[in-house]
Amino acid sequence: MEEAKPKPAPATSLQDIISHAKEYGFVFPSSEIYDGLQAVYDYGQNGVELKNNLKTVWWKAMTQVHENVVGIDAAIFMHPLTWKASGHVDSFNDPMIDNKDSKKRYRADQLLELKAEEYAANGQADKGHELLVEMGRLLDAGDLNGVRELIISEGIVDPISKTANWTEVRQFNLMFSTQVGSVAEDASLIYLRPETAQGIFVNFLNVQKTGRMKIPFGIAQIGKAFRNEIVARQFTFRMREFEQMEMQFFVRPGTEMEWYEKWRDTRLNFHKAVGLPAEKLKFHIHEKLAHYANAAVDIEYQFPFGFREIEGIHSRTDFDLKSHQELSRKKQQYFDNDLDENGKPYGNYIPYVVETSVGADRLFLAVFCNAYTEEVVGEGENQKTRTYLKLHPALAPVKAAVFPLMRRDGLPEKAQEIVKQLRSEFRVIYEERDAIGKRYTRQDLIGTPFCIAVDYQTLEDNTVTIRYRDTTEQVRVPISELKSRIGQEVSIERILENL
Amino acid sequence: MEEAKPKPAPATSLQDIISHAKEYGFVFPSSEIYDGLQAVYDYGQNGVELKNNLKTVWWKAMTQVHENVVGIDAAIFMHPLTWKASGHVDSFNDPMIDNKDSKKRYRADQLLELKAEEYAANGQADKGHELLVEMGRLLDAGDLNGVRELIISEGIVDPISKTANWTEVRQFNLMFSTQVGSVAEDASLIYLRPETAQGIFVNFLNVQKTGRMKIPFGIAQIGKAFRNEIVARQFTFRMREFEQMEMQFFVRPGTEMEWYEKWRDTRLNFHKAVGLPAEKLKFHIHEKLAHYANAAVDIEYQFPFGFREIEGIHSRTDFDLKSHQELSRKKQQYFDNDLDENGKPYGNYIPYVVETSVGADRLFLAVFCNAYTEEVVGEGENQKTRTYLKLHPALAPVKAAVFPLMRRDGLPEKAQEIVKQLRSEFRVIYEERDAIGKRYTRQDLIGTPFCIAVDYQTLEDNTVTIRYRDTTEQVRVPISELKSRIGQEVSIERILENL
Repeated sequence: MEEAKPKPAPATSLQDIISHAKEYGFVFPSSEIYDGLQAVYDYGQNGVELKNNLKTVWWKAMTQVHENVVGIDAAIFMHPLTWKASGHVDSFNDPMIDNKDSKKRYRADQLLELKAEEYAANGQADKGHELLVEMGRLLDAGDLNGVRELIISEGIVDPISKTANWTEVRQFNLMFSTQVGSVAEDASLIYLRPETAQGIFVNFLNVQKTGRMKIPFGIAQIGKAFRNEIVARQFTFRMREFEQMEMQFFVRPGTEMEWYEKWRDTRLNFHKAVGLPAEKLKFHIHEKLAHYANAAVDIEYQFPFGFREIEGIHSRTDFDLKSHQELSRKKQQYFDNDLDENGKPYGNYIPYVVETSVGADRLFLAVFCNAYTEEVVGEGENQKTRTYLKLHPALAPVKAAVFPLMRRDGLPEKAQEIVKQLRSEFRVIYEERDAIGKRYTRQDLIGTPFCIAVDYQTLEDNTVTIRYRDTTEQVRVPISELKSRIGQEVSIERILENL
Repeated sequence: MEEAKPKPAPATSLQDIISHAKEYGFVFPSSEIYDGLQAVYDYGQNGVELKNNLKTVWWKAMTQVHENVVGIDAAIFMHPLTWKASGHVDSFNDPMIDNKDSKKRYRADQLLELKAEEYAANGQADKGHELLVEMGRLLDAGDLNGVRELIISEGIVDPISKTANWTEVRQFNLMFSTQVGSVAEDASLIYLRPETAQGIFVNFLNVQKTGRMKIPFGIAQIGKAFRNEIVARQFTFRMREFEQMEMQFFVRPGTEMEWYEKWRDTRLNFHKAVGLPAEKLKFHIHEKLAHYANAAVDIEYQFPFGFREIEGIHSRTDFDLKSHQELSRKKQQYFDNDLDENGKPYGNYIPYVVETSVGADRLFLAVFCNAYTEEVVGEGENQKTRTYLKLHPALAPVKAAVFPLMRRDGLPEKAQEIVKQLRSEFRVIYEERDAIGKRYTRQDLIGTPFCIAVDYQTLEDNTVTIRYRDTTEQVRVPISELKSRIGQEVSIERILENL
């Protein structure tokens, strides 16, 4: 066995990640045989296990570890008035502009942002900043003509046609819509939800009443959301179909900042517990707040393409419940019989909400990028790069692989026997093809934490070797201990204990 | 404690089920504050746990217990040519007809089926049968005008307007469509997938190659599908947005019937293992086969509204892979180096497919209906009906509830301590409100298998009582034994062991 001395390896690029994800069954381009569908991806046989494990950890961290948080699973289809109340029908837009020569479409704000970055790169950061301020003012005022004039006066040209032959700037709603019902009088336009949060808000009273929930309490949900992004990019970071893991925590007005801070810290700990290192995580406090928020912070992870949001924590006030109350004419109030400082019940109010919202695909990508490890091992001629996925054992797609040393003499049968013993407890595979070193490598590449080798000694004394992925160390153990030794390491509870 | 003597209770109606599901946080109508969205439902705080548990059992039964089955998670959005290849663009239609007076729309085939049932109810079963045969002939021939004439000649009238003032019969495609991309030249019409199976077929080679899979092997998937049903009804049985749990098993041509039979039996066992009784399950063999199938059988469960399909097992031949090969011009072949009877490798072929397809919402509804139990207990004046959900402990939304006998003398603190000990292992709740009998009842209604009571003796000897849901029996046990005693009973592995 070679000695594994980790040495600095070349920095990982997004392209390394995309290739590895494709080649080892984590993420495939959607409908690839038809040349793909832009900004949509499928999770392969290993990706789906990693993603499901992350979803399970989040779900249990929310609804099992916290006694005052319960889950729901609302449908993707919702009554269209939901999106009127939430503001998405009127203002979930991106300003877009077309170049008449190239026929390409751009986000007007992104063209101006690129220009500002150009100024900064040329030592004119102030000028860049001024440009962004002016753009913000025009967008806030809804002055789309002003935005177009700004693009022209800044001399911005299409990168393809190199002309400034621009159309008008128009607002483009990012919601996907479809017709439900047949084309008769009952058909109506509905939207694919652009966020899961509203499924929680419209069910607030259903859950509170049927679950006899007392404020403060939370409702958690995992589900798909859809946004018709004009420019989608960076692999699974920004997709048109994506998955959210959101929790809305309902609190008494006036206590929201305390809960906002508590959840911000709780959520940061979660990301550390699933294996993201502290130095690759940071808070990014929003200076400019969305119309519904009185405080907002992102948890950012350092991707190969820079620090980017993986979760947002938002103090949403009573904006959503109040809007739904107004539009539905159904009271969205809670009666709080706890006593205030004067000994009187707090009484009826619309709760304030603190939201925690993780992009499941972003968390997947962060964990995958972080696990991807290249180490230079060996010396001189034997020097080579060892690639493996350093995933938390509870997150790994396959927990253990069992190998017979040879394909004869009863070793395969013995190995299969072990597989049968273990597989009601965790995911274990059998592999007999190729030399054993190659088999170890293949398991390294998908992040399998434990490889179990069955050799001739096994037939004599019922022991096997466990080979550890990260250290490549091998230890001889009795077969009878495998279930408990590995079972403990790969259990989701191992992560939950650290929360 | 009262003696629980189960007695015959009144038959459960679908309305009982719907009410219980709503009242105890299992299923809510979608967007209820906006008066709902037809044929769409949300899972509440207890429903989501039950459904997730069922999904987890199925997933593990497929991808963990079977070594040669792996999972994927393909996107809902797929390249539109997928649905051309599968036949959905051209023939996933229902024949519909409108009544000009009531302005209501009906499925033409269902109007005729109702008429046939009417004949049967009036002792004219033969005449009813003939009508169905004639309808089948007309639909197969695409003779929609003939279908209309049949409706008129049978004197079928609209149940609302009571007139036979019918429009023409038209085909209505059941796929939902939306526009992806902005409205510029790159926008295109895409569909919400009407089944998850095609996400598996288009990824067949990706999974086979990156996972080095050898035939026979399977690919499993859980995910949402969407059908714009003209008439959707029977609660969550037929919804416009629903969830499938599908597995496509790829086999060598000629071996498909053997695998079809194996999977049919394996899948029936699954439904028994999650608690559905043998006498409420039956096979329904399809006499008339879909264009892609050479054998098909449904597993039906006896709902309050009759025996209905919860899973289909279909031998789909090579229809799908062949269609995708033709349209994509990408070979969908597998090289089989196993040797045939002449000692030569089987070589290249397009695999045959055996599919198992469960409606997750239907399985949920079956398990929920089956668990719903009303028992007449007590005698004379004390006689009353006890309602509880007899769910397998591994499926129950809450595994254990901990009650302090009184809200004083340190009992709540002791109970909370127990909750903290248990909650990294399984879902446990604390409840101190109301008399303890009432608390037991509330847990019965959501199917909690174990209630733990903390009383004055607990403070002395660290023992508690466990009260069992089904028998209402109470047993005194040390606190130190709770984790392992309950942990074993509520573990998903308990179900997997029986597969």
